[in-house]
Amino acid sequence: MSTQKQLESIDQALMQLLQKRITLMQDSWKQTQSGTDDIEANRADSVHYQGLTQGLIQGSEQGTTTQGTTQGTTQGAEQGATYEALLHQHRIPLHLWNTLITECAAAASTAPPSVSSDCEESRCVVIVGGNGVMGRFLSDRLTLAGHTIRVLGRNDWDRADEILANVDLVLLSVPLHLTEDITRRVAPHLSPNTALADIASVKAPILQTMLAAHSGPVLGMHPMFGPGVDSFLAQKVVVCPGRQYDSFQWFLDAIAQDGGYLVTASAEEHDQIMVVVQAIRHFATLCLGIFLAREKIDINRSLEFASPLFRMELNIIGRLFAQDPALCSEIITASAERCQAIQRLASTCQEIADLFFKGNQAVILSEFDQAHQLFYQESARAFKESNYLINSLMSMIAADTMSG
Amino acid sequence: MSTQKQLESIDQALMQLLQKRITLMQDSWKQTQSGTDDIEANRADSVHYQGLTQGLIQGSEQGTTTQGTTQGTTQGAEQGATYEALLHQHRIPLHLWNTLITECAAAASTAPPSVSSDCEESRCVVIVGGNGVMGRFLSDRLTLAGHTIRVLGRNDWDRADEILANVDLVLLSVPLHLTEDITRRVAPHLSPNTALADIASVKAPILQTMLAAHSGPVLGMHPMFGPGVDSFLAQKVVVCPGRQYDSFQWFLDAIAQDGGYLVTASAEEHDQIMVVVQAIRHFATLCLGIFLAREKIDINRSLEFASPLFRMELNIIGRLFAQDPALCSEIITASAERCQAIQRLASTCQEIADLFFKGNQAVILSEFDQAHQLFYQESARAFKESNYLINSLMSMIAADTMSG
Repeated sequence: MSTQKQLESIDQALMQLLQKRITLMQDSWKQTQSGTDDIEANRADSVHYQGLTQGLIQGSEQGTTTQGTTQGTTQGAEQGATYEALLHQHRIPLHLWNTLITECAAAASTAPPSVSSDCEESRCVVIVGGNGVMGRFLSDRLTLAGHTIRVLGRNDWDRADEILANVDLVLLSVPLHLTEDITRRVAPHLSPNTALADIASVKAPILQTMLAAHSGPVLGMHPMFGPGVDSFLAQKVVVCPGRQYDSFQWFLDAIAQDGGYLVTASAEEHDQIMVVVQAIRHFATLCLGIFLAREKIDINRSLEFASPLFRMELNIIGRLFAQDPALCSEIITASAERCQAIQRLASTCQEIADLFFKGNQAVILSEFDQAHQLFYQESARAFKESNYLINSLMSMIAADTMSG
Repeated sequence: MSTQKQLESIDQALMQLLQKRITLMQDSWKQTQSGTDDIEANRADSVHYQGLTQGLIQGSEQGTTTQGTTQGTTQGAEQGATYEALLHQHRIPLHLWNTLITECAAAASTAPPSVSSDCEESRCVVIVGGNGVMGRFLSDRLTLAGHTIRVLGRNDWDRADEILANVDLVLLSVPLHLTEDITRRVAPHLSPNTALADIASVKAPILQTMLAAHSGPVLGMHPMFGPGVDSFLAQKVVVCPGRQYDSFQWFLDAIAQDGGYLVTASAEEHDQIMVVVQAIRHFATLCLGIFLAREKIDINRSLEFASPLFRMELNIIGRLFAQDPALCSEIITASAERCQAIQRLASTCQEIADLFFKGNQAVILSEFDQAHQLFYQESARAFKESNYLINSLMSMIAADTMSG
């Protein structure tokens, strides 16, 4: 049998086993949740599953750090040890197994789309700007959930009445600086029963505009991710209620069903937190990229010397500079608060650089300690997650090197 | 059969199949390399393997970006489509399969340790500072490769003659600011045949000190990674030859055998590139963390709103502030070049913030464009790698949510 045929037969068998494992985890989890079955037995399984997975992950991903202590149960630790012996016997790296179990649990955490489309009423959705990256993502996910999608693109305004007639939901998925104008342009075409939502990254002024322009259900939304994502799995979606929140329940359920995590907030809280999550992050990444360009660094040679974290940073910088510069500027300067915050960050950098220049070690230590207090509570999780991603990045580089 | 027993039997079967798949990939790859077998047939397999994996990865990880075009062969794309249909049929997420194939290829790229220990001569190594995190990592990996390790800790100096007698290699794995002193303290105990190497993050002055203090083989080394790593897999190790390079061949082979990528450079080039890879990265992360602490942001609430990239940044910041602040300061200020570079970065941040404040869009666009020119060549890789890690992070969060 050729290598190719052997690979194919192994892969078929692997897929069947993986499907079984995912279904088993899903059933066991559902039973624990619904409490219809023998609860004690299932709880024991759940504890075991947790101990087994976490024991292994802690063993490999946290093993060589000095952070935190292993928190698994003794039972979990013992079962972890048995699994480690089995893996060693089969010469399977611990990280390979950790990723396999992690990915199976993630798959088990979302119900297969075909189930949801059976039990949900099909709705009609218009996506304004549906040809953009986010528009296409939303269209794909809602179609998979069994809903009907129409697109209103930039050249479709003469057919707006026709496209926007008899729809359950209109989603505005257009550039930030156009959102308010397009809200006012869309609203006159809507029936008072049609629900209106947007996905722009600034919420307070846009929510006000939507509420003023449309008398029906209104919702501000902000999916906290960009291009390159497969599904809503574990992605945060901020939801700012405007009017008649219940009209959006089926839509929010579809997102949750696809794995999304809904976070409800006032538009004001959203906008305040985005100063850091968006403006500061973009500004810091932008400055680093511009600095590296000014220093004329050799990216390829730097990559040969790169630590995993430096490589991740370079990748994040690379993503930003492949974007539309106007979008990047817009995110950084979308509000007066954002402009003031980036000024404060720039001052902080200058201050810290001066402290190092003057060798003022005592003040640096005190600043370090204050930040340490803020981040300490999260450091065990930060190490666990980043170690897992570092090991995954290394595997990806090794696999790419092998395949040419 | 209980859920637990069913899981165990599935996992046993999975491990056997994974072992087969890894061995098959390894054999096929070795045959292609050595050219002892039917080369044409193996090349075809290799092309196929590549097309199949990359087709899938491009489909899922790059599918929704607008960056680049799919570069797989038509053959690869077709086979990718067949696999996609199979995965859909088994309800297995594309990213689960991509990680599985990636991890198998990574495992196949390194020979199992037991093979290497059979064919290598066992050496005797002393690790000075062998009780530290890096010391223990080096000790573990060299032990696994079949070598004998002794440790010279801070309380062992009265037995230094005994510990350092008849050894092939002495590895200095001590804090940066102690490395030169300890070099001078160790050297008088060494025979001229003993090889001496260090792993400090500054190379030029330390290499000079080692060459002056020891008349035998000398090598400067810098493993480009920190705690939390399982093996040398795909990790960069910078190597700066000092004297009698051949004496280190067995040692460098052991690192390469464990998956490490050796990068040879002069101590001066290493130190120059580290200004960016280490000092600038640490300084930028430090400033962001201090800024967030000054702004008194609520980390937990921010995480609820976090995009994947913001979460990754927070994790990188969290790692830094769990470190020893002295180590962090040392890395930032280890040389005059580093102190000057962080001043230039701080000035750049201030300049860019001022440009935004004044609304000087033209200059911002021109700066953006220059950085775009630098990073454009790497953007396809940056998207592919970061999308893969984003999807892996999402799976990890979903799995953690499910298990508790």
